[in-house]
Amino acid sequence: MKSKIVFGIITLFLSFFSVGQNLSQNKSRDLIIEERIDSIIGLLTLEEKVAMCHAQSKFSTPGVPRLGIPEIWMSDGPHGVRGEINWDNWGYAGWTNDSITAFPALTCLAASFNPSLAKAYGQSVGEEARYRKKDVLLGPGVNIYRTPLNGRNFEYMGEDPFLASTLVVPYIQGVQENGVAACLKHFVLNNQEKWRGHISVEVSDRALYEIYLPAFKAAVEQGKVWAVMGAYNKFRGQYCSHHELLINKILKSDWKFDGVLITDWGSAHNTKEAALYGLDMEMGTGTDGLTSTLKNAYDNYYLAYPFLQMIKNGEIEERFLDEKVKRILRLMYRTNMNPTRSFGKANNQEHLDIARKIAQEGIVLLKNDSDIFPIDPNKKMTIAIIGENATRKMAPGGGSSELKPKFEISPLQGIQERFKNATILHSMGYASGPPVYGNVIPSKLNADSLKSAAINIAKQADLVLFVGGLNKNHLQDCEGGDRLSYDLPFGQNEMINEISNVNNNIGVVLISGNAVAMPWLPKVKGLVQSWYLGSESGHALADILSGDVNPSGKLPFTYPIKLTDNGAHYFGELSYPGDSIKQYYKEDIFVGYRWHEHKKITPQFAFGEGLSYTDFKIDNIEILDKTVSAENHLKIDCDIKNIGSREGSEVIQVYVGKPKSIVKRAVKELKGFEKVFLKSGEKKTITITIDPKSLAFYDETISDWHLEKGEYIIYVGTASNKIDQKLKIDVQ
Amino acid sequence: MKSKIVFGIITLFLSFFSVGQNLSQNKSRDLIIEERIDSIIGLLTLEEKVAMCHAQSKFSTPGVPRLGIPEIWMSDGPHGVRGEINWDNWGYAGWTNDSITAFPALTCLAASFNPSLAKAYGQSVGEEARYRKKDVLLGPGVNIYRTPLNGRNFEYMGEDPFLASTLVVPYIQGVQENGVAACLKHFVLNNQEKWRGHISVEVSDRALYEIYLPAFKAAVEQGKVWAVMGAYNKFRGQYCSHHELLINKILKSDWKFDGVLITDWGSAHNTKEAALYGLDMEMGTGTDGLTSTLKNAYDNYYLAYPFLQMIKNGEIEERFLDEKVKRILRLMYRTNMNPTRSFGKANNQEHLDIARKIAQEGIVLLKNDSDIFPIDPNKKMTIAIIGENATRKMAPGGGSSELKPKFEISPLQGIQERFKNATILHSMGYASGPPVYGNVIPSKLNADSLKSAAINIAKQADLVLFVGGLNKNHLQDCEGGDRLSYDLPFGQNEMINEISNVNNNIGVVLISGNAVAMPWLPKVKGLVQSWYLGSESGHALADILSGDVNPSGKLPFTYPIKLTDNGAHYFGELSYPGDSIKQYYKEDIFVGYRWHEHKKITPQFAFGEGLSYTDFKIDNIEILDKTVSAENHLKIDCDIKNIGSREGSEVIQVYVGKPKSIVKRAVKELKGFEKVFLKSGEKKTITITIDPKSLAFYDETISDWHLEKGEYIIYVGTASNKIDQKLKIDVQ
Repeated sequence: MKSKIVFGIITLFLSFFSVGQNLSQNKSRDLIIEERIDSIIGLLTLEEKVAMCHAQSKFSTPGVPRLGIPEIWMSDGPHGVRGEINWDNWGYAGWTNDSITAFPALTCLAASFNPSLAKAYGQSVGEEARYRKKDVLLGPGVNIYRTPLNGRNFEYMGEDPFLASTLVVPYIQGVQENGVAACLKHFVLNNQEKWRGHISVEVSDRALYEIYLPAFKAAVEQGKVWAVMGAYNKFRGQYCSHHELLINKILKSDWKFDGVLITDWGSAHNTKEAALYGLDMEMGTGTDGLTSTLKNAYDNYYLAYPFLQMIKNGEIEERFLDEKVKRILRLMYRTNMNPTRSFGKANNQEHLDIARKIAQEGIVLLKNDSDIFPIDPNKKMTIAIIGENATRKMAPGGGSSELKPKFEISPLQGIQERFKNATILHSMGYASGPPVYGNVIPSKLNADSLKSAAINIAKQADLVLFVGGLNKNHLQDCEGGDRLSYDLPFGQNEMINEISNVNNNIGVVLISGNAVAMPWLPKVKGLVQSWYLGSESGHALADILSGDVNPSGKLPFTYPIKLTDNGAHYFGELSYPGDSIKQYYKEDIFVGYRWHEHKKITPQFAFGEGLSYTDFKIDNIEILDKTVSAENHLKIDCDIKNIGSREGSEVIQVYVGKPKSIVKRAVKELKGFEKVFLKSGEKKTITITIDPKSLAFYDETISDWHLEKGEYIIYVGTASNKIDQKLKIDVQ
Repeated sequence: MKSKIVFGIITLFLSFFSVGQNLSQNKSRDLIIEERIDSIIGLLTLEEKVAMCHAQSKFSTPGVPRLGIPEIWMSDGPHGVRGEINWDNWGYAGWTNDSITAFPALTCLAASFNPSLAKAYGQSVGEEARYRKKDVLLGPGVNIYRTPLNGRNFEYMGEDPFLASTLVVPYIQGVQENGVAACLKHFVLNNQEKWRGHISVEVSDRALYEIYLPAFKAAVEQGKVWAVMGAYNKFRGQYCSHHELLINKILKSDWKFDGVLITDWGSAHNTKEAALYGLDMEMGTGTDGLTSTLKNAYDNYYLAYPFLQMIKNGEIEERFLDEKVKRILRLMYRTNMNPTRSFGKANNQEHLDIARKIAQEGIVLLKNDSDIFPIDPNKKMTIAIIGENATRKMAPGGGSSELKPKFEISPLQGIQERFKNATILHSMGYASGPPVYGNVIPSKLNADSLKSAAINIAKQADLVLFVGGLNKNHLQDCEGGDRLSYDLPFGQNEMINEISNVNNNIGVVLISGNAVAMPWLPKVKGLVQSWYLGSESGHALADILSGDVNPSGKLPFTYPIKLTDNGAHYFGELSYPGDSIKQYYKEDIFVGYRWHEHKKITPQFAFGEGLSYTDFKIDNIEILDKTVSAENHLKIDCDIKNIGSREGSEVIQVYVGKPKSIVKRAVKELKGFEKVFLKSGEKKTITITIDPKSLAFYDETISDWHLEKGEYIIYVGTASNKIDQKLKIDVQ
């Protein structure tokens, strides 16, 4: 009898690892896999199944060694594959094989408005994850940019649901082509770091469905993402990582997500809720300090020993466990049990080229008085480069997304390489402290001498490039805390003012993942928003500054003049950051440019804005069939011509508004865009297609989408505040 | 142009990872792989190629990330997969997923005289290595047992070249079925631990070819091993890990070894020799303390920066590097670039069953006066179990072969489980100290109280089981040092004597990997040689002691009465251990039983010896065709019958001698054996086949094998000292 069972198991495994070979038969691979999963479930002990539902180390979950079911290994993302961490503490393991390509932050990808780059990004970072033997890459993040203070905005894709949806899908597809799961995060409403571990978000159904969920929905339904990470925070009093409405109903039932719901590290709080409300896998940080006689601290996890006990006691039905394990096995068939997945690669020139290309296309030129940019590299001139960010490595900071790149070209280095005819002077001007958690302010004495050295070189220069911004230290674009002020830190505002007293030819390069206050803006001629750009930072920046590449990035979020101009901050502390228990998203659906336009508050820079070194002309904008229904896609045609002397790209943006509506509506919302590359003098005809269903609002009275009939206005332009033409359509 | 190259690379890799799919064509997989290897070489930079030839960490070598060529990961063997070690120091990494099945030591496998168990052993440990994501398992070891003092004998397969050859081949085949390379070690003449790092072995060509090389040759030519590890020591003044004769001529040219020659850890000593004399991959321990400005200590390796420089300087031709890299790539195609290899498994019941079976078949019953064994488990009796080894975990000791098993059943535990009707008393009797490098002797006071407690229980018992031996501490069967004495350590001799004063019903269970002096032998009724048995130690021992399993193990090496009876020790210190510079193997070809028979020195126990609980009768021994030539195999037929009342296995052993020879010859040498299982009363007819070429001697005058014509004597029996019949044959 025993040998029969053994033989049965062997046969099963020989076959379940060779799914590929069965494809010649009629059954689909998916169907074969589902049958295999069902068979495996029956072979597993209760203990083995429970073990698969929680961590065994900081970044892995156990397999079933006796059956040859592999472990799952994960890595933080989304901008590259993180360095190797110790088994059970946060120290780095000291490996020397874990240097990788650092890709630009997702804010930069969002600013590129280029879905094909999102695909290349995903493919590349997925290849690196695969080479590093990771089965799950913890990213991308598509939490909506609600406030410029949020410490993790730089990891997300901006304030607009449509933009984030459009970019997240190809990113995920790219990653997963490698047999590496993307893990979409943080589901959902983790829009601030402050009190993220416990704050309960109170938000209307409309804002939830129209603003905060769409990018997740697209990632699941179109991107077919294999894993989703639950957020730390609560929504309406229940933790997001085990949430009946969010996970069971919306994610798994409505959207038919068939992958694994993973906690953020330590975001589970209750065994029964975790068991019943859709959490599949518990990962964590806090394995120490728990009083327990269990030998392994991971046994204390909610989905570990307590879960096992409740199943044994009959408090939780085993079918809930089986459902989780099936999802985990499905993830394995897609990743580490897929014998046909590639071997991956890392640090190759193609990945660097893609990282540089994304950086080039994401950098946004925001001000360019007197054509201060591009700077002619052939010109003999003296350039004073001031600011700590000119030399600061950004990839190693920021929290979990921190990276150990094989190299990171600093802005100074990139500029020095490209501007060999210029005399480059450099002075830090200010110092923020080392790239660690902790906001270190230099001593007054030191600060004075740094400043006077900077002023000194500014006086000698034909041109000052101030390279500042935020820096991924704690409270300056970093996981775990929000910024405390909308202003630039470390005295940068004063420094720019003082520089302007001695030199009036100033260009500012802001490196950040967030909007900042710009009281000095009238005193500088140029402004470049440069983001955290990864390995090729300095090269890409020099590409733009020199004019080798024409800037084409567009802002993925609004820059308010002052913080209270932002919708999240307009209503006071209960709206942001809350009272530590709850917070109310009082701006409701009016997030970002929707708020500014609704309230007619002019921003410093608007969503979608971004200059070029050339000029484009849009013509012949027309909609042939202005009467549309849910079944007929709306098609907007236009011509675009590069009427300047340099090649470059422009982003045609289509917004839609419904002035007369049974509900409150944003003036307009982005519903389509296309980035077009044109040589000097070149003209192209573009068609942008919009699914009329995307014009529906979420009707709280019926808890469903409602496509209102009647007149809509189509806005076609190249920024939310630069509309070339409005057209009317009629939805039947 | 650039995109063409990129496309070419992509195409190449898409195809080189899918060799399997090309098999439908006419080209063999091997040929396709060789073509791919040639193409890849051209893509690699000099630096990348050099990097592949040396370690990046304690147990890995780098791949080429940009091309997706993977890293190679290794684990110490040969008795299981070692726990995870830190990146660059010898501390354990503290992982909790690296507990595995501990298999019996290779001495035990050798004692089983069972090639099918060697195959199962290899398959199982290979599966565990694969599950643990190791590409190379550092084992098996087939250094010949020359002296009972050698600290690593327990890792090898005994004193006879034919026995070791017969068992090493299926072990390797089994491991490599998993897409995991076996790494045969230690090539060659690493027959002692003392001064292993520098001693030069001086040995005749005959002894080299006839005694020390055959098991390596079989492993290469028949086992098709994919990796070989060079020994620490020198041979005739040149380090074995880069040795013109041993590696370039014998291994790679004569035997056509096409795999990778890896150093023992730190056994390379010279860049030019390493480059020219066949070393392919340098691994090591000493990365600290070298004065260097290179950022990575591994860059100091002989096959690292110094190698690169000598190639650049023209001192070494690049073709030597390419040859190494080709071998390394070939290893990859066989292991980590083989997409069809299995996923492995670990800690499964089948592996435990195999480990237990090997242990059962390897345990040797050496003395059984008054049928003290088996002990009837149904009997109500008092058993005193004395000796530290009754409770000591052996798997974690011994040096590099140390393991972290999921569990290890101690002898006491196994006996307690099986003898539930008996009253089991237990007393350590002596204490050696914790299982670490260092030979800790307990204080006199403590020793006295341990002893008196033991004597006390011995007085009360119907039967005393003394469970002692060696213990894998430093100087007691452990890598890095030889035993200092042939005697049992920690006062065990005296202890057994004192026990015999109070109880005359004593059975001794020796746990060791080496022969020991047995001055107490006449005072004990029973003796079981039990080896280091791994996870199932106590179970397997209880299986034998209870008679559930009939012992069938045979000694794979001779037990001399005293040390100087052994050939290596007969000639004094220049023969063993040498003068620290050189040593001379003065016993020449007369190793083990060959020495004892040659010199007519009766051993305590002879090679091949081992008792059973039943009796076997061998009959009708005959050779049909007594005139043989190099082309005709010699066939010996015989009947064997189990004439006792229990089922059991016996090993028919065939030795061959040539009394009149032009050279000195051993009286007889093992040339064939077969293990036969027989139920009580059952009879089988056995045919043992011998290739007459194996009767050749190595003729130093022609540097080749010489099959002498004339009369040979065939000895058929069940031990080297228990010959049932001699027959004469004539070689033409």
